[in-house]
Amino acid sequence: MSGNKKRLLSGLQPSGELTIGNYCGGINQFLQYQEQYDSFLFVPDMHAITVPQNDPIKVKERIRRFANLYLACGLNPDRCTFFIQSEVPAHNQLAWILECHTYMGELSRMTQFKDKSSKYNNIGCGLFTYPVLMAADIILYDANVVPVGADQKQHVELARDIVKRMNGKYGSSCPGGQLFVEPTPLIAKVGARIKDLQDPLKKMSKSAENPMGSIYLLDDDATIKKKINRAVTDNDGKIWFDEEAKPGISNLITLYAALSKTPIEDVINRFNGMERYGDLKKEVIDVVQSVLQPVRDEYYRLEKSDYVDKVLDRGRDRAKEIASKKYELISSIVGFGR
Amino acid sequence: MSGNKKRLLSGLQPSGELTIGNYCGGINQFLQYQEQYDSFLFVPDMHAITVPQNDPIKVKERIRRFANLYLACGLNPDRCTFFIQSEVPAHNQLAWILECHTYMGELSRMTQFKDKSSKYNNIGCGLFTYPVLMAADIILYDANVVPVGADQKQHVELARDIVKRMNGKYGSSCPGGQLFVEPTPLIAKVGARIKDLQDPLKKMSKSAENPMGSIYLLDDDATIKKKINRAVTDNDGKIWFDEEAKPGISNLITLYAALSKTPIEDVINRFNGMERYGDLKKEVIDVVQSVLQPVRDEYYRLEKSDYVDKVLDRGRDRAKEIASKKYELISSIVGFGR
Repeated sequence: MSGNKKRLLSGLQPSGELTIGNYCGGINQFLQYQEQYDSFLFVPDMHAITVPQNDPIKVKERIRRFANLYLACGLNPDRCTFFIQSEVPAHNQLAWILECHTYMGELSRMTQFKDKSSKYNNIGCGLFTYPVLMAADIILYDANVVPVGADQKQHVELARDIVKRMNGKYGSSCPGGQLFVEPTPLIAKVGARIKDLQDPLKKMSKSAENPMGSIYLLDDDATIKKKINRAVTDNDGKIWFDEEAKPGISNLITLYAALSKTPIEDVINRFNGMERYGDLKKEVIDVVQSVLQPVRDEYYRLEKSDYVDKVLDRGRDRAKEIASKKYELISSIVGFGR
Repeated sequence: MSGNKKRLLSGLQPSGELTIGNYCGGINQFLQYQEQYDSFLFVPDMHAITVPQNDPIKVKERIRRFANLYLACGLNPDRCTFFIQSEVPAHNQLAWILECHTYMGELSRMTQFKDKSSKYNNIGCGLFTYPVLMAADIILYDANVVPVGADQKQHVELARDIVKRMNGKYGSSCPGGQLFVEPTPLIAKVGARIKDLQDPLKKMSKSAENPMGSIYLLDDDATIKKKINRAVTDNDGKIWFDEEAKPGISNLITLYAALSKTPIEDVINRFNGMERYGDLKKEVIDVVQSVLQPVRDEYYRLEKSDYVDKVLDRGRDRAKEIASKKYELISSIVGFGR
């Protein structure tokens, strides 16, 4: 499964509902990663409780839905170890050891903590320590690269600092002087950034207040048609690509290009100067429907089977095997047990 | 094993070397608890790394030694579940959930954290979060009572606050509306407080700098004799019990009373007014030797066998069974897994 490939670890946050924007960005990108890396994709369900969750049952339902959707989009369990974080106890076990090797000052400096803690009155300690759990997520699997957004880069760098510190302190007990692998953040090449259909200055969001602004991966053909037909454009009456002056029309062009796998310049050339927005919208509807229909069909087929459980069982077993070995090594080095 | 007894959980910190002071205080007390409660005694090895450990191998050796010594002193594995914390992953797993339900402000107010953090330059995060791990230790076993010194009372109260908070939030999902049991700190009746033989104003310590001040449970007869003969007394020349004016002599009287199981008044009456300190010391030597000899013999017998491993295996299995059930319940309630 692995060979000489570098190892990649990525987390799939089960919040909100996956949109066509996620499809054009993260999901498609992950499908490329699975060809290139020995890849691990995990659902960080334990991170979800760092902020209050009002409906835990919904979290579980979303985990299943997300897992099925990734499989429906083309995630290949022969190439990618796909598992749920809470099913591998070594994440918590290693996190404790790492907490004892992480300084209070380091965690206080995390900008995500500073941002989030300003939003809540009573700050849960998990909001402070979750970068350590994230470090454990990464370190357990000897991940070389971790694709993250700019907002999570600092956390991968913290994991790297912890790795260096622990290799320095305990590495001499290990073959090659290296206990842990230093991870590198992989800041994704910017893919297509799909905007909200109702407010094309904002990113299309998994948890938008107005569902008309987002096309969800499970929207049916009629819904897709309605949402695109009602997409906010402008009164200019000319199709032209200009993200500042014509954000709505430009967003539709971007979406078309991403889904039809056409270079954006070609799409621009084709539509530029056309006069009826309806013609453009019709083509966008066609391509979105043609991409989502097989995803949806496959999703509903998978949902009826126990395939997702088999995949997640297999992923859990492989993840556990690797993670336990790593944890046993370090726990013995720090002096745990008999 | 349990019946209608209340459940008690106690931690056995494997630091320093057990002394006759520990025997007269904690160990004897625990032997009484095991008759009275469904008792759990665990070695909190994971707590040991909250402060830097320079020699992890020594920690392991001490764990075995402590375990064997407790067994040699009379710990009864039929009455007490005896296990090592790091061998039950649910402690870390539950600790994460509790961290997300503990406020930063609560942990910042812990006086142990304030005290310890003033002693080190770079404060490890484990020093901040270990009261949460301790809460998990307690909560996993539905412990009703937790014997602690005054310095740890605040931590049991924190555990109690967390229990109340989580029962309030999630209890309705559980039969009886109670998810967790509220623990109560059990502040031990003050047993005999044995002082340092070289500095009888200080408590006899497990990690004294001058070993002549402490009698260790494995000291041989000659060492016991030497240490007591050299115990600091005074120049008064009269045997009299007065802890302020004659701390050295009073300490020897206290030790004699505790080990001979004689009311301290009777001992005082017997020795008061005697003129030769050597006579008192000889009697103290006799009683210490007669108490420690069978402990030592049993210790060396056990050390050659695999008995301690069998006891700890059995303890781990029972602890795991109880702890996993509790963890699975709460992890499902907060929304983990599928």
